[in-house]
Amino acid sequence: MRKVDVCLSPDLMHLYTIHDRTIVIVDILRATSCITTALAFGIRSITPFALLEDCRSMKSQGYFTSGERDGKKVDGFDLGNSPFEYMDENLRDQKIAFTTTNGTIAIAKSIGAKEIVIGSFLNLSAVANHLRQRNDHILIVCAGWKGRFNLEDTLFAGALIDSLKDVVEQECDAPQAAQHLYNQAKHNLIDFLKDASHVKRLANLNIFEDIKFCLTMDKYDVVPVVKEGVIQSGV
Amino acid sequence: MRKVDVCLSPDLMHLYTIHDRTIVIVDILRATSCITTALAFGIRSITPFALLEDCRSMKSQGYFTSGERDGKKVDGFDLGNSPFEYMDENLRDQKIAFTTTNGTIAIAKSIGAKEIVIGSFLNLSAVANHLRQRNDHILIVCAGWKGRFNLEDTLFAGALIDSLKDVVEQECDAPQAAQHLYNQAKHNLIDFLKDASHVKRLANLNIFEDIKFCLTMDKYDVVPVVKEGVIQSGV
Repeated sequence: MRKVDVCLSPDLMHLYTIHDRTIVIVDILRATSCITTALAFGIRSITPFALLEDCRSMKSQGYFTSGERDGKKVDGFDLGNSPFEYMDENLRDQKIAFTTTNGTIAIAKSIGAKEIVIGSFLNLSAVANHLRQRNDHILIVCAGWKGRFNLEDTLFAGALIDSLKDVVEQECDAPQAAQHLYNQAKHNLIDFLKDASHVKRLANLNIFEDIKFCLTMDKYDVVPVVKEGVIQSGV
Repeated sequence: MRKVDVCLSPDLMHLYTIHDRTIVIVDILRATSCITTALAFGIRSITPFALLEDCRSMKSQGYFTSGERDGKKVDGFDLGNSPFEYMDENLRDQKIAFTTTNGTIAIAKSIGAKEIVIGSFLNLSAVANHLRQRNDHILIVCAGWKGRFNLEDTLFAGALIDSLKDVVEQECDAPQAAQHLYNQAKHNLIDFLKDASHVKRLANLNIFEDIKFCLTMDKYDVVPVVKEGVIQSGV
């Protein structure tokens, strides 16, 4: 049977073999929710950069720049980390250079996997269906917060495992914990997460609408895939 | 208010400041359950060693040697990792040199904390009462399994936080997850853990009685404390 595991923090990636896996990167608040939304709205590609200045320099090559540090948009960048910013007709078929606090680190550490997919609640079923059609083992990588465990990414891992439970076998304790937590939270994700640290951090920035949106299930049918360092729609 | 955080794996210890904390080390199956039992039965001291051969060499200095690797007793050592082995009148007032797969690493990485305490379900209330009498912030360090998250240590973290909830504030998402999981599991820990990977690993070694014992609450009133590298009863 195909195996599924969950890496609860990019700082634990050294514990996992990745060459035989499809990796699903998750950074619910808000990087992978933005990526999903952007591709659903017809943006051609998103190129992640670990360093802010590398990302900024892409402006001269015709890219839109998108950057966030500590939950705030970077000065001088075209776009921040709210999914609503990516619902813009002017961005259709454009290329975006992208950098975030946690999401880009998770992507960088996943290079070498058989396939890298971007997951969020917004495209949960699309990702699950995509994974069903493949035969590889699965590793869900939670971007976390500066190396630490976070609840919202873990809940997504639980949701994805739950929707694949007839075809995957849980490999270790992390997927079990994720699924238990998701089963406890699923009837009201917002309420369950109201004390989560990143939700509180973002609530301080007055972006409750973003949070609510990022916790919406199955809004888009797109499956973003990382190929040669560039994220594009795989469906 | 005093803060409590949970480090879900020794491989995440670099993310935490420890000098202003009381650290509680937890390795339910079975290192910290053995340590608790040993001190409750009058063993004078337990000295943890990271390296097996360092531990073995203490035999010539009059120590009993206790060693486990991958859940199995080390050849030539006096004692293994079953708590029942430490309920022995012949061990009263003796010194033990101790090494385990995960527990000793967690202890080694906690050096520098204000105080290091050993926790298990067997002495949960004793540890909680001890922590109540102090004013430091708390970090619960789960020994995990070879760097990975495990359920039983996380459940203990949740139980300890739950019993201190009137005096501590949860600092991040890991304590919340631990408490949620504990609340789901508390009515039947054994049943909740039946699919946990280390429980299955140990069940393969036919030590179900050990597991049941290690999940027993409040059997002993002892609080093992690590001082200058040696574990002794702090109560």
